[in-house]
Amino acid sequence: MLTLAQIALHVDGVIIGDAECKISNVSTLQAANSQQISFLANSKYKKYLPTSQAGAVIVSKEMASLVKNSAIVVDDPYIAYAKIATLLNPPKKITTGISDTAMVESNVNISKTVSIGPQVVIEANVKLADRVIIGAGTVLQDGVIIGEGTLIAANVTICHGVEIGKNVVIHPGVVIGADGFGIVNDKGKWIKIPQIGGVKIGNDVEIGANTTVDRGAIEDTVIGDGVKLDNQIQVGHNVIIGNNTVIAGCSGIAGSTIIGENCIIGGGVGIGGHIEIVDNVMITGMSMVTKSLTKAGIYSSGIPAEPSSQWHKNVVRYRQMDKLAARVKKLEHPDIGNITK
Amino acid sequence: MLTLAQIALHVDGVIIGDAECKISNVSTLQAANSQQISFLANSKYKKYLPTSQAGAVIVSKEMASLVKNSAIVVDDPYIAYAKIATLLNPPKKITTGISDTAMVESNVNISKTVSIGPQVVIEANVKLADRVIIGAGTVLQDGVIIGEGTLIAANVTICHGVEIGKNVVIHPGVVIGADGFGIVNDKGKWIKIPQIGGVKIGNDVEIGANTTVDRGAIEDTVIGDGVKLDNQIQVGHNVIIGNNTVIAGCSGIAGSTIIGENCIIGGGVGIGGHIEIVDNVMITGMSMVTKSLTKAGIYSSGIPAEPSSQWHKNVVRYRQMDKLAARVKKLEHPDIGNITK
Amino acid sequence: MLTLAQIALHVDGVIIGDAECKISNVSTLQAANSQQISFLANSKYKKYLPTSQAGAVIVSKEMASLVKNSAIVVDDPYIAYAKIATLLNPPKKITTGISDTAMVESNVNISKTVSIGPQVVIEANVKLADRVIIGAGTVLQDGVIIGEGTLIAANVTICHGVEIGKNVVIHPGVVIGADGFGIVNDKGKWIKIPQIGGVKIGNDVEIGANTTVDRGAIEDTVIGDGVKLDNQIQVGHNVIIGNNTVIAGCSGIAGSTIIGENCIIGGGVGIGGHIEIVDNVMITGMSMVTKSLTKAGIYSSGIPAEPSSQWHKNVVRYRQMDKLAARVKKLEHPDIGNITK
Repeated sequence: MLTLAQIALHVDGVIIGDAECKISNVSTLQAANSQQISFLANSKYKKYLPTSQAGAVIVSKEMASLVKNSAIVVDDPYIAYAKIATLLNPPKKITTGISDTAMVESNVNISKTVSIGPQVVIEANVKLADRVIIGAGTVLQDGVIIGEGTLIAANVTICHGVEIGKNVVIHPGVVIGADGFGIVNDKGKWIKIPQIGGVKIGNDVEIGANTTVDRGAIEDTVIGDGVKLDNQIQVGHNVIIGNNTVIAGCSGIAGSTIIGENCIIGGGVGIGGHIEIVDNVMITGMSMVTKSLTKAGIYSSGIPAEPSSQWHKNVVRYRQMDKLAARVKKLEHPDIGNITK
Repeated sequence: MLTLAQIALHVDGVIIGDAECKISNVSTLQAANSQQISFLANSKYKKYLPTSQAGAVIVSKEMASLVKNSAIVVDDPYIAYAKIATLLNPPKKITTGISDTAMVESNVNISKTVSIGPQVVIEANVKLADRVIIGAGTVLQDGVIIGEGTLIAANVTICHGVEIGKNVVIHPGVVIGADGFGIVNDKGKWIKIPQIGGVKIGNDVEIGANTTVDRGAIEDTVIGDGVKLDNQIQVGHNVIIGNNTVIAGCSGIAGSTIIGENCIIGGGVGIGGHIEIVDNVMITGMSMVTKSLTKAGIYSSGIPAEPSSQWHKNVVRYRQMDKLAARVKKLEHPDIGNITK
Repeated sequence: MLTLAQIALHVDGVIIGDAECKISNVSTLQAANSQQISFLANSKYKKYLPTSQAGAVIVSKEMASLVKNSAIVVDDPYIAYAKIATLLNPPKKITTGISDTAMVESNVNISKTVSIGPQVVIEANVKLADRVIIGAGTVLQDGVIIGEGTLIAANVTICHGVEIGKNVVIHPGVVIGADGFGIVNDKGKWIKIPQIGGVKIGNDVEIGANTTVDRGAIEDTVIGDGVKLDNQIQVGHNVIIGNNTVIAGCSGIAGSTIIGENCIIGGGVGIGGHIEIVDNVMITGMSMVTKSLTKAGIYSSGIPAEPSSQWHKNVVRYRQMDKLAARVKKLEHPDIGNITK
């Protein structure tokens, strides 16, 4: 429990109402009780303000007059909410030590402040810095290096030699450093190209559940500092993702593609191999990117769903566009008659 | 081995032929032998009836005359097949008890009738009801609650506090309750928004291999009763899926989207965030849904594959549609001459 | 360390320069040092030849004159590179034996030359041939059969009765043989159809991280010899994939579809159920395949991303195509006047 005053101090906010009001946690405008703080970041939810039971609300200056109980007034209520939610929900205390059921090889370099969960496997030459947490059932192969304060969740696989920075969060089911898809056809048979590169992951990265990041073919696959990857993303070998780029779930990036810094890539996006995307590109969900994007800006593709009867008709029309263009050409040049198609 | 009479009774079917014929299992019309029962649910397979060696066939009244051996006549042969296959393939007897290699914390509430496999991890405050089965290598984090008769397969991760109903089946590699993708940009850096909601999964739900369901940001992510999710689906934070909705593989649903009851969603569908889909909507495979669907019905998008040479041409035409429309306008208004483009 | 002569012999190449030059490994033209061999397979990288520090370069006859140090001249530099990289990076020596922390049931048939990692679970009736390697945390259920020289990586789940051939590589997080998505609607409730088929995987197959292959409904799901599947692919029940077909990441194949031999399928492709694709078909990335492809050739769909402002315009135009066609028709038949739309 913190007072509204303590909370406001944390986000440089101005208090309206009762500075001594006690707050236990965050909640939504609709569900909050008098010991919870809520926020109004999207004007769509303004309608819930009058009836909200929240003890306090985080608002912008413009909305401050609408609050009936207490409030914290800030420039950006959503950022303030994120900080206050973090303040009120500190990470669970983790018991340091190594579970009896973990299998840790002898030739490792592990800080005394780590926490290694049950059924974990840690192979030779692994280095774990201070306060690293390894979740149950996770496997760290030979030579993996993990920086301070990084959390690897349960049932994760980190393959040999992968290097992970500080304060990284890797969610369950993730696989880092499996072989890239390197094959070549030799007289009808596909032969494997050894994947001898590694994976380097920067600091402050977050990687969502069941996402996969392949090791490089020769050089490394690289995930920059502050990159945030959602669930079920596939990152091919030798991909480079620039600092602070974020990618939503189910996207796939083919091998050797380079993505710049501060990009925002939607869910279900497919990005072809061997292309380059500059900094500050935004790509909307389910887009198909087949060529380099050389200018910052927003890119899209895909046609949103419509009733199927209409869709059928439009697909037919799409297939006829060539003919339609020919008909228009003929109308433009009636004198050519039937000679030109 | 059951007699045809016993089987027919189970599905309220009418027997043609030998009621005492012994049946060991189901099979296809093409592969069945005289101790197996097959079915004809799709008239496309009618051609296999004359030569089928099946001891008996499940058919509709209309098809009954085509059967040469014995038959069970029912209204819906496919439903009857499902019930008979279940009857002939009862779940394998599971030995109750806890494997020696499982790691179960002391402060748990576990029925004596559960089966907990090898290398499992069960953290504190977990509650497992009667006849729950936990497959090898699975991790149940702090406070997970699982209802009667639910089967969690191997190498699954259920994160802290997730609640799962009765008679649920969760396949290998699934991750339930990892953090949602909640981030906000604060002066160029992405900061994490704590994901303090949970996940509630109803009764009779099935979740396919390597599917991921994120925990809510503030309130819960909710999967209704009777929902069936195929493999490799991503369900974002605070998504609500209504009862008896089914979703095929590789689909992704972004955060805070609400899907109604009895919907049927195809494979590879992408559904944007913060939208609402009413009950009884069907969405065909690989559709891109970016807006709320407010009427029941069938929706589609995407253009089916065609020979690449044609595809290239059509993409070019697609890009020229604006110009084509302008040309048509000019033809409609020739008097405007060259003034209007 | 091998001499250039030894390496050239391995690929039937012709040496230019110093046959006794010692080579430790492969590298890129840009990064190689004097003890490394590089290759030029794509003329795009020709520009790096003059400044490359590589001790030797694998080149085609056409490019041989551009090399400043030593070279191996071959017909196909990329294939030669694959073979040389394999020669210089032999598989790590694996210690045979069974980890103390593995749980192996008694009624199994396991060669003495296998290597079974920590925290592995091997259920009854499993058969492992010579030199099989089972990675940490992997679960092999009842009756799994694995052929000589096959490597199953960490945290993989192979469900009951699955048969895997020789020299197969299965990467972390893969699930083989989970139930297919078999359900049928009985008066509003979905009932499960038991999935009693199996999975048969041929020889020389590679399956990427977190890919899922479902077991058959009645008969088996079949992956042919030499098939290569990338990461995060979903293969539905009763799919049959012909020999030497390769599929890139994030693709999904719905149930009962049959794919021919020697096909090349790009990433993010969605293939509908119950269709047939003949041999030697190539499908480009993110295509949507809804009908059988009965002729060899290259197929595509999807419209590449463009700046969003343009995309918005094109989507609107797409929706108006029907009207545009009607307007063209009216221009073609002005005499019909306003009667026909």
